[in-house]
Amino acid sequence: MQKLRVESFSISIDGFGAGPNQGLDNPLGVGGEGLHQWFLPTQTFQQLHLKHNMTGKSDGTTGINNDFASRGFKNIGAWIMGRNMFGPIRGPWSDNNWKGWWGDNPPYHVPVYVLTNHARDPIEMDGGTTFHFVNEGIYAALERAFDSAEGKDVRVGGGANVIRQYLNAKLIDEMHLAVSPILLGSGESLFSNTDLLSLGYKCTEYVLTENATHLIICK
Amino acid sequence: MQKLRVESFSISIDGFGAGPNQGLDNPLGVGGEGLHQWFLPTQTFQQLHLKHNMTGKSDGTTGINNDFASRGFKNIGAWIMGRNMFGPIRGPWSDNNWKGWWGDNPPYHVPVYVLTNHARDPIEMDGGTTFHFVNEGIYAALERAFDSAEGKDVRVGGGANVIRQYLNAKLIDEMHLAVSPILLGSGESLFSNTDLLSLGYKCTEYVLTENATHLIICK
Repeated sequence: MQKLRVESFSISIDGFGAGPNQGLDNPLGVGGEGLHQWFLPTQTFQQLHLKHNMTGKSDGTTGINNDFASRGFKNIGAWIMGRNMFGPIRGPWSDNNWKGWWGDNPPYHVPVYVLTNHARDPIEMDGGTTFHFVNEGIYAALERAFDSAEGKDVRVGGGANVIRQYLNAKLIDEMHLAVSPILLGSGESLFSNTDLLSLGYKCTEYVLTENATHLIICK
Repeated sequence: MQKLRVESFSISIDGFGAGPNQGLDNPLGVGGEGLHQWFLPTQTFQQLHLKHNMTGKSDGTTGINNDFASRGFKNIGAWIMGRNMFGPIRGPWSDNNWKGWWGDNPPYHVPVYVLTNHARDPIEMDGGTTFHFVNEGIYAALERAFDSAEGKDVRVGGGANVIRQYLNAKLIDEMHLAVSPILLGSGESLFSNTDLLSLGYKCTEYVLTENATHLIICK
């Protein structure tokens, strides 16, 4: 049975998945990079960067944080993300040169379905990633993602707004959150306008590290 | 310098300080008792109950959870709480026999200022607790609490709405939150309609136990 999974989604103590004023200079919003201090040093992240973008980094850490980072890439056949996660452009696609934050060889290597209100042709990238732009809503995106995932699971990358839409439709099977010990004050709130308990979700796992509280939330 | 402190305030993963439908049968709202699983077994809580209400309980646990529970009662000269924390009655005081949830000898032993829109005479309880009802707003309550605290600090008990009012007025000096690994889905949200970062707060301490993440938030 294919699952729809959220993995390694970092939020602040006050529940924000990104800081305010997201844009080209602040892909994660102001202060948002503080959300990922548990993730950046891990072997999983370091190897993604070594392979695709950067040079000369260390091997990265192993242990609980890396275990959580790593599981997020296992058995994933397609991704879904909101267009704010794909880039800083809002409204119609004024700049077709924008192909995501991740360079020529993005760390997905599978089809990625980008939710948008504005149609755009698919973009085929190096390494197996193709960005498809879906303007028929979350159900259509999910159907296409499951179809193309070849029996594997689908990962919702974010942001908070997209995750909340899938939660409110009771479509998320499993969600891994990492709560980082920072305040963001404003931005994209994961828990506003949703009632996870009424939707049938509960916390089934709770693991602590020195820089994040990991939670697994399931139906 | 006297401080205004929040201590041992428990919230759910989704940021609620109490569950929905608070009332006589659910003082903490539906599911709200799950917030306090880190606190109930502690020596601090057990001794409060032994002394004031109950009989025959064990000595309680020591360790990190108890250290946090215990510090919340140190150097406190007065309390402030909302009327929903004082009791289930809403609107005018239709029943003057209601004297709080805590029996004849409440665990405060100092003046307690209850914020309300409806005037009521003070109630003197056994053991040094007097409930004063303040209908002139949060600043008046704080001034009276500091005046009567004899140089000690003042603790804001809750609920979330009262804490948020004092946070938004930048009057809280130090806030200890315990995030419990449960979802409440709805109820009293601590972080809605406030922007702790813009208000100048940050997380200065982060301590983990098997049933709560303890956070200290300061200006």
